[in-house]
Amino acid sequence: MTTEYFHFLGVLGVAFFAVSGTLLGHEKKINGFGVVVVAAMTALGGGTVRDVLLGEPIFWISSPDYLLSTYSAIIGTILFIRYMPPLSNYYFIFVDAVGLAIFNIMGIEKALINGSGMIVAITMGMTTGIFGGLMRDVVCREIPLVMQGDVYASACLAGGLSYAALFSLDIPYVWCIVGSILVTVLLRVGSEHWGWRVNLFKKRNAAPSEKVP
Amino acid sequence: MTTEYFHFLGVLGVAFFAVSGTLLGHEKKINGFGVVVVAAMTALGGGTVRDVLLGEPIFWISSPDYLLSTYSAIIGTILFIRYMPPLSNYYFIFVDAVGLAIFNIMGIEKALINGSGMIVAITMGMTTGIFGGLMRDVVCREIPLVMQGDVYASACLAGGLSYAALFSLDIPYVWCIVGSILVTVLLRVGSEHWGWRVNLFKKRNAAPSEKVP
Amino acid sequence: MTTEYFHFLGVLGVAFFAVSGTLLGHEKKINGFGVVVVAAMTALGGGTVRDVLLGEPIFWISSPDYLLSTYSAIIGTILFIRYMPPLSNYYFIFVDAVGLAIFNIMGIEKALINGSGMIVAITMGMTTGIFGGLMRDVVCREIPLVMQGDVYASACLAGGLSYAALFSLDIPYVWCIVGSILVTVLLRVGSEHWGWRVNLFKKRNAAPSEKVP
Repeated sequence: MTTEYFHFLGVLGVAFFAVSGTLLGHEKKINGFGVVVVAAMTALGGGTVRDVLLGEPIFWISSPDYLLSTYSAIIGTILFIRYMPPLSNYYFIFVDAVGLAIFNIMGIEKALINGSGMIVAITMGMTTGIFGGLMRDVVCREIPLVMQGDVYASACLAGGLSYAALFSLDIPYVWCIVGSILVTVLLRVGSEHWGWRVNLFKKRNAAPSEKVP
Repeated sequence: MTTEYFHFLGVLGVAFFAVSGTLLGHEKKINGFGVVVVAAMTALGGGTVRDVLLGEPIFWISSPDYLLSTYSAIIGTILFIRYMPPLSNYYFIFVDAVGLAIFNIMGIEKALINGSGMIVAITMGMTTGIFGGLMRDVVCREIPLVMQGDVYASACLAGGLSYAALFSLDIPYVWCIVGSILVTVLLRVGSEHWGWRVNLFKKRNAAPSEKVP
Repeated sequence: MTTEYFHFLGVLGVAFFAVSGTLLGHEKKINGFGVVVVAAMTALGGGTVRDVLLGEPIFWISSPDYLLSTYSAIIGTILFIRYMPPLSNYYFIFVDAVGLAIFNIMGIEKALINGSGMIVAITMGMTTGIFGGLMRDVVCREIPLVMQGDVYASACLAGGLSYAALFSLDIPYVWCIVGSILVTVLLRVGSEHWGWRVNLFKKRNAAPSEKVP
């Protein structure tokens, strides 16, 4: 049951990140096949790093569903861009946020199953969530989203803590997942919309130790 | 027999990529020892990622031949640059294309031996071929060759499909390899020479589904 | 005994690199939580690549000490930056050099224990030392320190060769470590102070084969 949830979540997560990679690639005028490369790297990068670090078999080699989902999402997005009106940058932020939220949970869960403690698990969740998008931005020569000073890694961390909190309250599994995804996506998208910021260096009245685990 | 072919191909492939890394490093005015670092990373990066993903021992740790080939190619290229007339950018493209073609085949073959299906194997071939050059370009702060909108990943894919096609026709092994390398190198170098382009987003009369596996 | 030395060295090394990552992140105006991400990546990147390549369990997953050291160093540096006078760039160079020197030795030692030969071990030492800082610079969109043409990879190599030389002279273990760290840090910091350079391409009276192993 849990395994099925996670398989479904993973297939969904790679699709979201594949869409975000295709959108950024298009914006950066990568017209050729390179856009497929950058989108696939975005979709598979975070989970691949997670599996390598945990010494597990790589998820997209074990099951072909992930590659099918990735390539289908890329083809779908390319068709959409060709035949439909242009999207605002807002959609890119949203799609990236959902991917981040899903991979965050999957990284935490997989580390816990692997026997890691909570501090390692939350680090692994952030790694899984952040790495694909980071590779996308580095390869596209963008300032990485995670480095732009907005709420990004903090949204990821908040999602992870919510997941742990809900889980410890014995709430049914699916609601832990939904709750954590909502927290991450709302914080992330809200920060873009209302300009929320985390500032570790300047605000002297905030205690940074509260924000760093 | 097969193993010997692959060992030889691998030693040749790392040398080609080492030369391409040294050439780009020189062009980017990396005068010090950093050029050795970037060249070694170019030569060994793609195959290392492949072996990590497949859970195999890393090729250049298992056999010292690869490091010797890499370092010899770097020293040779440095001597060449110091004492010989400057090369045109064309040689860089060619050397990179041969490395791409060789590593593409090696990635496919190693994934197939490992028991992966064709879609995973072709993804692995492209990963092996593309990753070393991608790391080189990112570290040198160039627009990655694979992202410049020319035929690059598509040449890699075409080489992979040729390899599969020739293999299924029961053609002797060495000709499958030669054929695939020729397809990749000709497409890649030809696209630079005659300006061929793949455009997934703009040409409305081309069906993108034909280009994406 | 040896294991204890290395555990202590590792905990120290990640702290130095975490400080260097936080300093560069601050300089690049990454005000939010992203600075924690880039600092953690700097601290853990090199050793993680080493463990993945050697097929060992990842050091910071096996023992929580490394993550605690990393996060403590990050929090300490953030507090320091908030409440203390600004540091000159010189401190950044120094902190990075110490991290480089420590990880260089650890990479060599871990590869030797793993049964690798000397050429692989020295390559692994340079990989461990250089990779964390390289990821930091790439993600922060800086010209990587290792590519700026100063003594960086060469300092790392000299430190590795000193370690091997001292070890073969039957000098007590701790002095091999101290000697190697001194060589790397002095070469690295001295090159920044007095402008020493290695130039593989231009100085025709220097034999490049002496510099390349």
